[in-house]
Order: sequence, then structure tokens, then C-alpha cells
Amino acid sequence: MVRLSVDCMGGDHGPSITLPACKAFLARHPQAELLLVGKPEALTEAAHWPRCRIVTASEVVEMDDPVEVALRRKRDSSMRVAISQLKAGPDGASAAQACVSAGNTGALMAVSRYVLKTMDGIDRPALASVIPNQHGGFTTMLDLGANVDCEAEHLLQFAIMGSALVQAVDGKANPSVGLLNIGEEQIKGSETIKRTGEMLRTVAAAGHLNFYGNVEGNDIFKGTADIVVCDGFVGNVALKTAEGLAAMLVGFIKEEFKRGIYGKLAAVVALPVLNRLKARVDHRRYSGAALLGLRGLVFKSHGSADAFAFETALNRAYDAARNRLLDRVHDRVVETMQACPKPAAAADSAGDKAA
Amino acid sequence: MVRLSVDCMGGDHGPSITLPACKAFLARHPQAELLLVGKPEALTEAAHWPRCRIVTASEVVEMDDPVEVALRRKRDSSMRVAISQLKAGPDGASAAQACVSAGNTGALMAVSRYVLKTMDGIDRPALASVIPNQHGGFTTMLDLGANVDCEAEHLLQFAIMGSALVQAVDGKANPSVGLLNIGEEQIKGSETIKRTGEMLRTVAAAGHLNFYGNVEGNDIFKGTADIVVCDGFVGNVALKTAEGLAAMLVGFIKEEFKRGIYGKLAAVVALPVLNRLKARVDHRRYSGAALLGLRGLVFKSHGSADAFAFETALNRAYDAARNRLLDRVHDRVVETMQACPKPAAAADSAGDKAA
Repeated sequence: MVRLSVDCMGGDHGPSITLPACKAFLARHPQAELLLVGKPEALTEAAHWPRCRIVTASEVVEMDDPVEVALRRKRDSSMRVAISQLKAGPDGASAAQACVSAGNTGALMAVSRYVLKTMDGIDRPALASVIPNQHGGFTTMLDLGANVDCEAEHLLQFAIMGSALVQAVDGKANPSVGLLNIGEEQIKGSETIKRTGEMLRTVAAAGHLNFYGNVEGNDIFKGTADIVVCDGFVGNVALKTAEGLAAMLVGFIKEEFKRGIYGKLAAVVALPVLNRLKARVDHRRYSGAALLGLRGLVFKSHGSADAFAFETALNRAYDAARNRLLDRVHDRVVETMQACPKPAAAADSAGDKAA
Repeated sequence: MVRLSVDCMGGDHGPSITLPACKAFLARHPQAELLLVGKPEALTEAAHWPRCRIVTASEVVEMDDPVEVALRRKRDSSMRVAISQLKAGPDGASAAQACVSAGNTGALMAVSRYVLKTMDGIDRPALASVIPNQHGGFTTMLDLGANVDCEAEHLLQFAIMGSALVQAVDGKANPSVGLLNIGEEQIKGSETIKRTGEMLRTVAAAGHLNFYGNVEGNDIFKGTADIVVCDGFVGNVALKTAEGLAAMLVGFIKEEFKRGIYGKLAAVVALPVLNRLKARVDHRRYSGAALLGLRGLVFKSHGSADAFAFETALNRAYDAARNRLLDRVHDRVVETMQACPKPAAAADSAGDKAA
């Protein structure tokens, strides 16, 4: 049995999206149980669902609530209560093995960090997600916005955590890690990136990581490496740039297929092909970012997720819990950090300064 | 009369691309003159073209030559000789008003900087290019890879130079500048970005710049601001990420329209629409990045440019020279820097450390 806690009130649409997703998820996974967290009056329809229990939370973190409000004022929010289910009780066991929320990213990261704390050996949690690549597979990318100012030590930790994630969830034995840079050569990039490259080569030489080398922005979609590591500023800009381009191109395609009689006729004929294309790049298929580096597995779905997208996030959380991602990340971190002597100066600057 | 110097040997294809582009350019612009720089034996066909003169250079900077080779060993390269045409003679006049090359970016930046020097008030030159947006217009973005570690002062300089570029070349009176960040709020982003935001607000309040505020990756294609400012690492990653996504989507479209009998039939019907779409996103239409901040106007075309793309770069250089971009950048820098008190500490750290 794997049990997930679900922040049913989070996201733009709350229970009207999360509950249908939970229902579909339960039907698909007979080995799964859910803790549905939220206001009981909003969750009445789920009151008698099998393998489900409603956990009451009286408050809701809104999508535009500042981090401080989520952290200090709304202490009984569905987000916080859902995350708290991951904390070990006196017997060492937790009520749930992973948590899923579509709530606002800043609040989710801050509350998760406050409630769960970071794992030994990890200075900062990171946000990891999968991005479709041209092989028909996925590239896992981190960090996507949790940390804006990163040192080489942090990027190394992201590499280790990303590697453990892909091993556990995608079942790849020795996934390759690429360091996002502005050229393939070792001499390229900022001082931080060059130092990260050195550390990754050291760790790889000791057999603790499959380091591909530097990759560039286009390699994310080429699928050159299984995992692409970058700081949260660069990751967030790259992801949103891609989203912006995709939106523009979809707009252009629609406009051209609506232009004039011929365009409209061509649209009718091309519709089945265009629909296949749409399904292929459907972003709901890769919903569900992992917050890595915490003492508990938290997954985030898009705030605007529909039921299908939210179910994808539930599936990812379920796979992670079932494959013991938390233990794997922990073991990989301990093992790799031993191989990588931490310079004294760097240890100082690697303090707790996450944005 | 506007005279451009052209590195005819640069790029992947040399004169086989640059000469047809020059010929088409001359036909289109009766007011333009060209200095064709390269090995005379490779340029014989242009020997008797009107409004043209061949300037001899005995060496060629190859696309994979390290910066040091371009800078120190090949002192008579077509790239260097073409750039040298921009230097003022004893009478204060230069042989050409702008230079165009499709040679390798690192070498072009280094040689330009060495030969021309940076403008007063500018610490580092930046690479600016236009990117199509969903309004059917263009967003100008800089820096795209010349500077990997930037301070706030550098980003401010990029904003001023970008603004002058759009005013001069696109004729916009008061173009808006967006600061690339991971959220719209002022409190978002790295320390450098937050400090840049403060400086841009100060300069804008004094009436020297139209500062829109923070923009995110997707705003590049939305056309939220006329100019998007970022450091060269982020700009390079964003641009290459977009190129990668575009390549993947084009691949998917081709695959789907080749799949099965129906897909092929649909492709035939949809072809005119797909061709319109292709023309609309044709990257050759926005070839020609400007190296800003030097004492001379240097434009760079893609190494893999075809004649059409190289001609676009010639057109951009011509427009820039005709509209006195160099003087405008200079005036804007002087005027704006007076409005922006340079802190003593920052002035120290803003030294000459370009990558």
C-alpha cells in the first residue's frame, strides 16, 4: 500500500479539479490510498469513496498569497496539513509517503521546507520537472525556479538528486547528467558553472554519477542528456521562454488554418493530423514537478491544471513513493558527498540563502 | 552615401554566400557602397561591380579558430581588416560606417573590441538581436552571449544601448525596456537583477528610459516590451532553448504529415498553409545581431547564413549606419549616465572582465 496526501483545495480550481483526478487515480491504482485534505464541506462527494480518508483543514492558501501569509498566518491550510502528513510520527512511520498540491509554488516550497526540513547534505531543495524531447521521451530539468543564486555545490547537489529521481521514477540504471551552459567546451561559462563542471567530473570519475558534460539550451529538446542541471533563474527563464514560443506557434498555426476559404478547407482535412500533433506535445502529460531535497516527497501540479494534468502529478508522486525515491536520494547524496571533498571556503558560502 | 565593409570570407560558406548577398544588396540600395574584404582571387567576380571596392586580406578566421588565433596570429584576416575600416583616419573620417561578418562570434567580439575599443561609459559590448513576437513584430533582446557574469551596471548599459538601437533602426520614439526575471514583482530575482531594477527605475524616473518593469521568458514572444535585457548566459540559454523547441516542433509536424496515407494526403492539401507558416517564422528574416558599445558598428550574421539571411544582416547594418546609431548610442549613454550616480563600490567591480 502506498498512501498519498492531497491538497484538495490548492490550484486555480480546487476540489472541482482535484476530486475527479483523485477518483480516476484511485480507480487506476488498486494499491493506492489517499488522504484528501481540505474543508470537509467542499469534499462531501468523496466522503464514502473507498481507500480514502478526509483530513480536515480550515484554511486555504490562495494562488496570490505571499509566502509569509502561507507560512505564518494560515497555519491550518490544506497545503500545510497535507505536507504535515509526511512527517514521521513517534513510531517512525508517516501518515502518507508523498504529497501533491497545485498550490502556488513559492508557498509550497516555503511551507514544505519549514515543515519537513532539508535532507542531510542538501543545502537547498530544488524543483524538477520533465520536458518532452524529440526522441519521444523526456528530459528531466532542475532547478526550475526555487533557487536564484546558486553556488557550484548546490548545482552538484541538484545533479545528484536529479539522477536519483530519474533512476527511481523512470527506471533508468545510470542516467546521464548535462550541465546547462553556453557552449560545450569546458572553458565556457561563468565561474560558478566552470567550478560545477570540475566537481561533476570529479564525482563522475569516482563512479558516482554519469556526467555527460556541458549541454546548451537546444539540447533540452534534443534529449542529449537524461537530466539537465541549472540554477533556478536560468531554468525558469528557459522553461517560460519555451512556453512562450509554443504559445506563439500554436497561435500562428491556428491563424494560418483560419485564413481564407482555402485555409479553412485545409484545416478540415488536416484536423486529424493536427490533433495527433497536439496530443504529442500535450503539456498535461508531463505535469507534476518534484520538490527534491526535503525529508518528504512533495509534488507540485500546475495551478491551472485540469483533472487529467492533476492525475498525472498524482501518478508521478505514486511512482516516486512506490520506488522509494526519498531513500534513494538520501543514499545517493551520502555516497556522492563522500567522494567529493567540500572545500572549506565553499562550505561557508553554501549556507542557507535560498530565495 | 553609406559605406559598409563586408568580411566576404567569414561564415561556413564564404564568398559563395556573401557575394550574391552583396550583389542583391547593392541592387536594392542605390545609395550604398561596399568594401569587399578578402582574398582577391576569391572575389574576382566582384572586380567590376559598381559602388564596390575590393580590399585585400590574406588570411581567414575559421569558424573553429580559438579567439587567441583570431586576435594574435591572423593579423591580416578578412575579419580584422573589415573591422579596421571603421577606425577613424587622421581626418576623423572612417573608410566605412558599419561592418558585417558571418564569422565566429567569439572571434568577432574579441577582434572588434581590440581594434575599435569600447565607447566611453560602456564597460562591455553586448550582442543584440531581434526575435519575432506574436504581434507580427520583433522583440530586441540583449545580451545574447557576449558577457556571462554581469553586474547591474552592465545590464543598465545594455538597456540604454538596446533602447538606442530600436530607436535608430526601427524608428520607435520611446521603446519600452523589460528586465528579464523569474516573476513580475520587484522583489523577485537575484540580487543583481533586483539592483538593476532599482537603477532602471531611477533612470526612468529621470525621463531617460521607458522602463516597463520585469518580464518573464514567455514575454519575449508575447512582445510585452520592445527590448528585453538579460545577461549573456541567460540570453544565450533562452535563445538556444527556443531554437531547440522550434526544431523539435518542426520535426514533429513533418513526421505527423508523413505518417500513413492520410497524413501524406493532408500534407498535400495543407502545404500552402504550412508554407505560409514557414515563411512567417523564417529565421533568416531576423538575421543580423548588433555588437553594441564599440566605437564602430559591427553586425554579425549567422555562420550558416544563406545569401538571403546575409543580405538581411547587410540591410540591418545599412539602416543602423544611415540612422547614425553610433552617435545615438553615444549620446544616450552620456545623457543617461549623468542621471544615474555610479556608486563607488560598483564602479570598482564594473571593470573590464568580459568573458
